[in-house]
Amino acid sequence: MSYASQLLDSYPRTFNVDAHVLTATIDALTDCAQACTADADNDMSEPDVADLVKCMRLCMDCADICMTTARVTSRQTESDPNVTRSLLEACIASCRSCGDECERMAMMHAHCQVCEQACRRCEQACMQLLDAMM
Amino acid sequence: MSYASQLLDSYPRTFNVDAHVLTATIDALTDCAQACTADADNDMSEPDVADLVKCMRLCMDCADICMTTARVTSRQTESDPNVTRSLLEACIASCRSCGDECERMAMMHAHCQVCEQACRRCEQACMQLLDAMM
Amino acid sequence: MSYASQLLDSYPRTFNVDAHVLTATIDALTDCAQACTADADNDMSEPDVADLVKCMRLCMDCADICMTTARVTSRQTESDPNVTRSLLEACIASCRSCGDECERMAMMHAHCQVCEQACRRCEQACMQLLDAMM
Amino acid sequence: MSYASQLLDSYPRTFNVDAHVLTATIDALTDCAQACTADADNDMSEPDVADLVKCMRLCMDCADICMTTARVTSRQTESDPNVTRSLLEACIASCRSCGDECERMAMMHAHCQVCEQACRRCEQACMQLLDAMM
Repeated sequence: MSYASQLLDSYPRTFNVDAHVLTATIDALTDCAQACTADADNDMSEPDVADLVKCMRLCMDCADICMTTARVTSRQTESDPNVTRSLLEACIASCRSCGDECERMAMMHAHCQVCEQACRRCEQACMQLLDAMM
Repeated sequence: MSYASQLLDSYPRTFNVDAHVLTATIDALTDCAQACTADADNDMSEPDVADLVKCMRLCMDCADICMTTARVTSRQTESDPNVTRSLLEACIASCRSCGDECERMAMMHAHCQVCEQACRRCEQACMQLLDAMM
Repeated sequence: MSYASQLLDSYPRTFNVDAHVLTATIDALTDCAQACTADADNDMSEPDVADLVKCMRLCMDCADICMTTARVTSRQTESDPNVTRSLLEACIASCRSCGDECERMAMMHAHCQVCEQACRRCEQACMQLLDAMM
Repeated sequence: MSYASQLLDSYPRTFNVDAHVLTATIDALTDCAQACTADADNDMSEPDVADLVKCMRLCMDCADICMTTARVTSRQTESDPNVTRSLLEACIASCRSCGDECERMAMMHAHCQVCEQACRRCEQACMQLLDAMM
């Protein structure tokens, strides 16, 4: 059981979203931030680094946005649904854009294929959390 | 002249947004992240900390979101306007929410008044950058 | 298998540290950042929030430091061992300090006990990575 | 007057370090984080990006470490001097390493020269804060 799940279990107040959906999203966000940080680094070590500039840039954005979205969704106290929702939408846009570029590079580089999977899974998880918040 | 401005001056490619608007926004984002980090800490030192929980929480979100938005808007290379735009919208929502709560606390705490000003200025700057991107 | 491990498997260059130790540390850092973010939030929801200020503050520091250390250790390309080592030492100090305060609060709050475990495990992992780098 | 300075002015408790040194350090950290984020991006747009991989990597580390150090030093409440000191030492190592590589690239790229200045100034500021904490 992830720490996200354990910490939610001992949260002292009630919260208005399905705990399973929430923890699955936090875990997907944390995983995607990690995958994007590592993929940008792997890109930097490739001989064809000049062809991977777009991939690196989108990975750097996606790592930052997923990390921030993980933090905001991990906080239950006095959360503002308008902020959470608009941030989830930004995160979905970022995961989609980064996933598309990683997919384009996946034939050449196995690490881009791994990162694409993390982005696709995170995009799905954020959409499910958005749905669960309605 | 801020580093945001100096670094843009030596950017090797062209970019499609007004440099003055862009650097003003990056500076407002960096300032607001700093103000929110410090205001959440000031709240923690107040005797009425229990009444400041909402302020602290929104400041923590706003610090994280402004910092990430500063990073994404500081990157010119291969930027994706869909990502930037949706992140600016999330940042506007966060600055508004945090600014409103800080305004509510400003009568009691001078530090919340300072933070409110940083949030309002950052919200305006993000809206101007959104306009400039159209 | 975590993304940290999968991405290291497809890293195009060689690296000088044991892959198992490295990925275990990255995973412990990511977990600890998550636990500390959530524990600070749980603290904010407790009726005795005023007694949890020290815990919140150390959790906020520890979340930031673990997240940055996860990023730096996730990058293999052109890493500077002096930077990595001194950052691991800062992270060990932060996990120890936060773990001690969480331990003090663990009798009262189950979430602090969970966070203490994450801090202790992360402190151990960082020490093992430091050893492996010698 | 920067927000770091304004927020310290309204801090409700006393703190044990010279306010001028502290705010100068926070401002230098924030500036250096911004310069490093932008310089890594400028590097990505250069035709000789393959020669700038080390510079990019050290800039990415330095941006992360300076940002985290800015956050930790911005928090006055219940701070742990052991954590602050070891983090300042890591930040000094990072600014030195990044500054050295930027200096090496400064003949070729004006943006690396700007970033070097930010790193040198931040390294000095962190050393002064360390001294002031003794």
